[in-house]
Amino acid sequence: MGKKDVAIGIDIGGTNTAIGFVDTEGNCIHKTTISTNGKEPAENFFERLKKRINSLLEATSNELILKGIGIGAPNANYYNGTVEYPPNLSWGYINVIDILKKDFNVPAAITNDANAAAIGEMKFGAAKDMRDFIIITLGTGVGSGLVCNGRLVYGADGFAGEIGHTIYDPNGRICGCGRKGCLETYASAGGIRRTVLEMLEKSDSPSSLRKINPEELTSKKIYETAMQGDRIALDAFEYTGKVLGTKLADSVAHTSPEAIILFGGLAAAGDLIFEPTKRHMENCLLNVFKNKVKIIPSALQEGDAAVLGAGALIWNELEKEQCAGN
Amino acid sequence: MGKKDVAIGIDIGGTNTAIGFVDTEGNCIHKTTISTNGKEPAENFFERLKKRINSLLEATSNELILKGIGIGAPNANYYNGTVEYPPNLSWGYINVIDILKKDFNVPAAITNDANAAAIGEMKFGAAKDMRDFIIITLGTGVGSGLVCNGRLVYGADGFAGEIGHTIYDPNGRICGCGRKGCLETYASAGGIRRTVLEMLEKSDSPSSLRKINPEELTSKKIYETAMQGDRIALDAFEYTGKVLGTKLADSVAHTSPEAIILFGGLAAAGDLIFEPTKRHMENCLLNVFKNKVKIIPSALQEGDAAVLGAGALIWNELEKEQCAGN
Repeated sequence: MGKKDVAIGIDIGGTNTAIGFVDTEGNCIHKTTISTNGKEPAENFFERLKKRINSLLEATSNELILKGIGIGAPNANYYNGTVEYPPNLSWGYINVIDILKKDFNVPAAITNDANAAAIGEMKFGAAKDMRDFIIITLGTGVGSGLVCNGRLVYGADGFAGEIGHTIYDPNGRICGCGRKGCLETYASAGGIRRTVLEMLEKSDSPSSLRKINPEELTSKKIYETAMQGDRIALDAFEYTGKVLGTKLADSVAHTSPEAIILFGGLAAAGDLIFEPTKRHMENCLLNVFKNKVKIIPSALQEGDAAVLGAGALIWNELEKEQCAGN
Repeated sequence: MGKKDVAIGIDIGGTNTAIGFVDTEGNCIHKTTISTNGKEPAENFFERLKKRINSLLEATSNELILKGIGIGAPNANYYNGTVEYPPNLSWGYINVIDILKKDFNVPAAITNDANAAAIGEMKFGAAKDMRDFIIITLGTGVGSGLVCNGRLVYGADGFAGEIGHTIYDPNGRICGCGRKGCLETYASAGGIRRTVLEMLEKSDSPSSLRKINPEELTSKKIYETAMQGDRIALDAFEYTGKVLGTKLADSVAHTSPEAIILFGGLAAAGDLIFEPTKRHMENCLLNVFKNKVKIIPSALQEGDAAVLGAGALIWNELEKEQCAGN
């Protein structure tokens, strides 16, 4: 039996780093994780990463051929191959691609997690035949990746796709970025939590959310409470969808995507978030864009999506090289 | 002497239609205009257009070879080759490319005027070596064209680039599109006029703008009055720059352009509009984008820009075909 071509997909998260082999069909095999330990120097992390990958490669050398390595990481710059001052890691400015190319001598590429997710959806997921779409990742923060003319938009500096930091309300909530009213402060896991706490404070209506200690209030608990019909929890999803839909109408006016894919924690709330987002977006759209733009969930398997996206990134690069060579 | 390759550039405006030959270096020769007469049926217009072009071709047949026709027009759809229900023309839905290909048997392409301007700047103007930029046309309306990865963004339906209809204030001014608070209602020629009228009504401060009959108040007069140091006129430019700069920060967060080119009527006010736009944009930018994005004027000659853009559109198409053929 012949050996199978695979890429390694690496998703560097604040707490854990997931590693897996991704084949050309989008199967994720031999997945494993190491702790990121962001407080340690980067050298330690990459030494541990190298050891783990080497033991994976040794164990699979009879079946798999490594063709490249793709990485999704916070504050990653595709053009420079760097991670630049990530907020939750003590790494400073570090060239990840140089390190991995030296260690493994195969092509490597890096981008941020939302961009990796976009390429994952384009190659293996919900955007397979699309040339123009946007992915919005609703997690701890709000990330985004834009694809136009079949290509990911990196922009002049490699940092395009910060829809989470477009402004919903210039006098609104303080954002971690130092400004006010960013979409992220409303449509992230922390954002819906803030919405609930505001609503509980402003109203006297009964809600089982009142029984939860504010420190223990999570978006998952808000979801569960909404599913039980709790008014405040339902209103919080409605409000989140209103803010998200309103801002997405502006995004549509920029790049007129065929679809917007919602991905990550909050997107798992299904109709609770999709329905109000779609309704408010339609309400805010310029006529020419009405009833055209789909809002759809990711089609990548939740647990594997980030590693698949990272793997898809390098498959995409290898394809581009092949085209350029012809 | 050999003959010179030229494209015909056609800029269909609400009142007049400009026609000219555009060579590969971006020279505009033998420019002429016909009246658009938007109330007449489209057939009459295209009959007159055909006659004018034929007489141009006859007069120049010894020196020029026609390689293609590019058109800039309101509500044009690049993918369909159509003009679709333009607000100031009684044409309805009409396939312009079919008509012109039948009449002249050369390649033809159409897009809206802002997109044509973007391609004009990319081929012959201020964006010659840029792969990522945005053009904003500040005229009767506010149009825009986005270039990402060296290619114009048309989006899924051909109508991408409606930054003029992103929302500045959801409770703001009524827009011609039927919604409220669009950027266009502030940053267009009519927008700054509305700003001045509001300011004159709200304040008692002396202004020579009070001597102008509201019906005769134009953006040009506001500019001239501002240049004489009139406070209200200066404040109106400051406010216009604030609105424009604020919204452009959102656009930067989408596509991270190397530059934003301001084009058209209001852009002719120079520093009066560039300075506050840049200042407010910088003020609103996410840290990672600060001090990176240039705001620059068009480098196409004012009178020829629209025809050059339309000509550049078809040169761009012919180049793409050549690349695809290799």
